[in-house]
Amino acid sequence: MIETPRDPDFEQRVRASFARQAAMATLGATLARVVAGEVAIELPFRSELTQQHGFLHAGIIASVMDSACGYAALSLMERGAAVLSVEFKVNLLAPARGNRFRAIGRVVRAGRTVTVVSGELRAVEAESEESPAAPVGTSGPLIAIMTGTMMAVRDRPGMFD
Amino acid sequence: MIETPRDPDFEQRVRASFARQAAMATLGATLARVVAGEVAIELPFRSELTQQHGFLHAGIIASVMDSACGYAALSLMERGAAVLSVEFKVNLLAPARGNRFRAIGRVVRAGRTVTVVSGELRAVEAESEESPAAPVGTSGPLIAIMTGTMMAVRDRPGMFD
Amino acid sequence: MIETPRDPDFEQRVRASFARQAAMATLGATLARVVAGEVAIELPFRSELTQQHGFLHAGIIASVMDSACGYAALSLMERGAAVLSVEFKVNLLAPARGNRFRAIGRVVRAGRTVTVVSGELRAVEAESEESPAAPVGTSGPLIAIMTGTMMAVRDRPGMFD
Amino acid sequence: MIETPRDPDFEQRVRASFARQAAMATLGATLARVVAGEVAIELPFRSELTQQHGFLHAGIIASVMDSACGYAALSLMERGAAVLSVEFKVNLLAPARGNRFRAIGRVVRAGRTVTVVSGELRAVEAESEESPAAPVGTSGPLIAIMTGTMMAVRDRPGMFD
Repeated sequence: MIETPRDPDFEQRVRASFARQAAMATLGATLARVVAGEVAIELPFRSELTQQHGFLHAGIIASVMDSACGYAALSLMERGAAVLSVEFKVNLLAPARGNRFRAIGRVVRAGRTVTVVSGELRAVEAESEESPAAPVGTSGPLIAIMTGTMMAVRDRPGMFD
Repeated sequence: MIETPRDPDFEQRVRASFARQAAMATLGATLARVVAGEVAIELPFRSELTQQHGFLHAGIIASVMDSACGYAALSLMERGAAVLSVEFKVNLLAPARGNRFRAIGRVVRAGRTVTVVSGELRAVEAESEESPAAPVGTSGPLIAIMTGTMMAVRDRPGMFD
Repeated sequence: MIETPRDPDFEQRVRASFARQAAMATLGATLARVVAGEVAIELPFRSELTQQHGFLHAGIIASVMDSACGYAALSLMERGAAVLSVEFKVNLLAPARGNRFRAIGRVVRAGRTVTVVSGELRAVEAESEESPAAPVGTSGPLIAIMTGTMMAVRDRPGMFD
Repeated sequence: MIETPRDPDFEQRVRASFARQAAMATLGATLARVVAGEVAIELPFRSELTQQHGFLHAGIIASVMDSACGYAALSLMERGAAVLSVEFKVNLLAPARGNRFRAIGRVVRAGRTVTVVSGELRAVEAESEESPAAPVGTSGPLIAIMTGTMMAVRDRPGMFD
């Protein structure tokens, strides 16, 4: 699907909005890539983000996937629209083991009001300390998938992206 | 639905496992109530957990709901079983405004392997600083609902709850 | 939650739209109750609607739940709006055994464009032929739950409810 | 993902189970393709299956997607296992217009007990009667996507696939 962004400055708009998401900074997540209809976010493993078995908590996984999906949707919205998550579902496929994770969000269908998105989270660096030179960004094991609905909000005071 | 816990020490087991979820401590979430088949978690608002419009990030909302739902499921599992999230879906109803939030997770149906859960998140304290004495725990505006599937895992090395 | 319908003739509007859903007639489903924000649909068991083990097919379950949820949403929409399903999720709790099923759809939150709904499906009559006089409408075993998102569509040619 | 079927006769097993799904025959759905980890089902448009605006009903869409996903999961299960749907979510992208639809179900991750699946439904033939020679099976507009969880059931009396 070729997506034509309605705002030529979409990348800057996405990056500025991401920078305002305090939760992403708190988690240590960074914006890895912004193209029209697709956004990638990276998250290094930190023991402060784990569930009881030492894996990344499912809600933290959902957090970076939701942001990746939301910003993928925003990348195709016109200037003046703000993006809100309406709903998302996460299926967890494997324990989130690894040193570094990458969430990718993609637009499946962009409507005027409602945008359907899908996402995935992969471990992109092996857990083992023996391979510190493992290339970052290598496609790794699939850990979770998401589908969701994002909404464009317009003319709501104080809400912009 | 009356639920009979299979482990009389379920509350202690849930509390000990929650204490090992580093992510909950990082978010500032606390376990407010543990009964058979129902668990409540509270989360004070912190600006470090917000999305770009200043509301609680949807993934953070999902994090506390997932833990509440997972521990509701664990409360009915026999000793020796560990709990894993298989999937969850969150519908967001209103921006997460407020000083304090409460997530409640409930078991809808407990099977031997698979447990179906539902959850909700409410703001339990108004946002306004003019009413600092608002009673904590008052049922407040509904912000999100969740349904999910939890799985009991047995005999997997190093995985217990 | 008390819901005030925006159209006093909502019941007639829901009933007329349901009558145009050919799929419901094909399945043998009937509208059992229409109140503001809540709609019930009944479906007698028929072997033509089963999956491979002889239970009601999960998609047929989803069909009546989706209609119940969609019409619950429509019952609160103003005259002139049409309703469309944006998404729904079904969790299946038990095999759909029984002579008669009842799906209930309820509005969780009604917005101007987006309405969040939840639903359930129960067997309301036992399967056994020994008890043909079992009272219809008795609350029976819970078979499935749904959450979903419905959208109000306006000013689209040929689309009305 | 290369999937190695655990039962060399998986195709025959899937086809025999599909033939027992009375609901599929009632809808007019047929099994178009069975490979390891992927199953396609075709459904011709019939006005008996529509919602109130004349499009295919969302629950009917869900029915063929659920069967396609369930049988994709079954194709990788060992002989003796039966398949049950645990949950699925459908996002509807566009009104289901067309003469013929194709649902594809794929295994995302096959576990011993739980299999995660994804599906899609496309219109594969245009609606217009002016183009009766349109090639069947052409990739057409995407109408819906699904993610779901399927479960392998073993040693349950009377339940086999």
